[in-house]
Amino acid sequence: MELKEKKLSSKEIYSGRIVNLYVDDVLLPNGQQSKREVVRHCRASAVLAFNDKGEVLLERQYRYPYDEVITEIPAGKCDGDEDPLETARRELEEETGYCAKSLSYLGKIYPTCAYTDEVIHIYLAKDLVRTHQHLDEGESLEYGFVPFQSLLQDISENKVPDAKTLAAVSFYLAGKEKAGQ
Amino acid sequence: MELKEKKLSSKEIYSGRIVNLYVDDVLLPNGQQSKREVVRHCRASAVLAFNDKGEVLLERQYRYPYDEVITEIPAGKCDGDEDPLETARRELEEETGYCAKSLSYLGKIYPTCAYTDEVIHIYLAKDLVRTHQHLDEGESLEYGFVPFQSLLQDISENKVPDAKTLAAVSFYLAGKEKAGQ
Repeated sequence: MELKEKKLSSKEIYSGRIVNLYVDDVLLPNGQQSKREVVRHCRASAVLAFNDKGEVLLERQYRYPYDEVITEIPAGKCDGDEDPLETARRELEEETGYCAKSLSYLGKIYPTCAYTDEVIHIYLAKDLVRTHQHLDEGESLEYGFVPFQSLLQDISENKVPDAKTLAAVSFYLAGKEKAGQ
Repeated sequence: MELKEKKLSSKEIYSGRIVNLYVDDVLLPNGQQSKREVVRHCRASAVLAFNDKGEVLLERQYRYPYDEVITEIPAGKCDGDEDPLETARRELEEETGYCAKSLSYLGKIYPTCAYTDEVIHIYLAKDLVRTHQHLDEGESLEYGFVPFQSLLQDISENKVPDAKTLAAVSFYLAGKEKAGQ
């Protein structure tokens, strides 16, 4: 089945600090025309970081769109064409004051594929060394380690809605299942 | 630590079919002012559906922002104030022609918490009965069942970037771990 759509034209609606909104005219596989609203966003990285006790590093951060403080793994946007691995290393240290001696790639996620082009690259961090937290101006967050089983418990009780955190756990558990085969 | 921000004013930038963009002025915990770009979106539901063989129902759909055909669980937007459970039931049947006799709640996800307020409610579907697919006009997708272990294998090989699908697997595996305790 032909599934692909063809871009006919693109119009910039808004260019902001985080969000750039476009409305494109597209040709559908059935020959009809339609519009696609696309929020273009820079790439980002997120980090599932474990300490030597097998505890995972989580943040508590206020998220304005939800008017809620939520639990998340450390994450942040790539600066320009920064390598996502470097973004992961930098954001982990800036937000929590931990430097990871070991960082390996878990996978990429498309957070909401219908209307943004955002990609978040997720890394597994181990061998953490304490350095110094240095938050961006105006950035506020709390952080701490929790046992991985407690995170799973919270996920099963619907207390962790953040998609990148859930995706990181999915990559990690799927990798463990594969290794256990 | 005070983490919460206070809305001072809100300006609508764009009101579209899927996306509504606002730029708000906010007061930060440190007393400074800042701007928040927020994509307001209706609620949505997604369904992790298993057949009697323990295989999971997956779709292949072209996603314009990524110019890519990706693998996803069935999902769709709530019609107005439709109950997300009803959305899950309706979208599953419309997109794949399967009606679920059993639907239970797994949890909600915030796909990209920094700049949208979208919430996707995820359900577990079992006891599927074949009825009829009836796609929206202009909607194109393929679907089929795959063994759950194959999905895990694909996730561990970074072949499944869709966040709601990864989150659904995370809810499901976390629930299984809890049940196995």
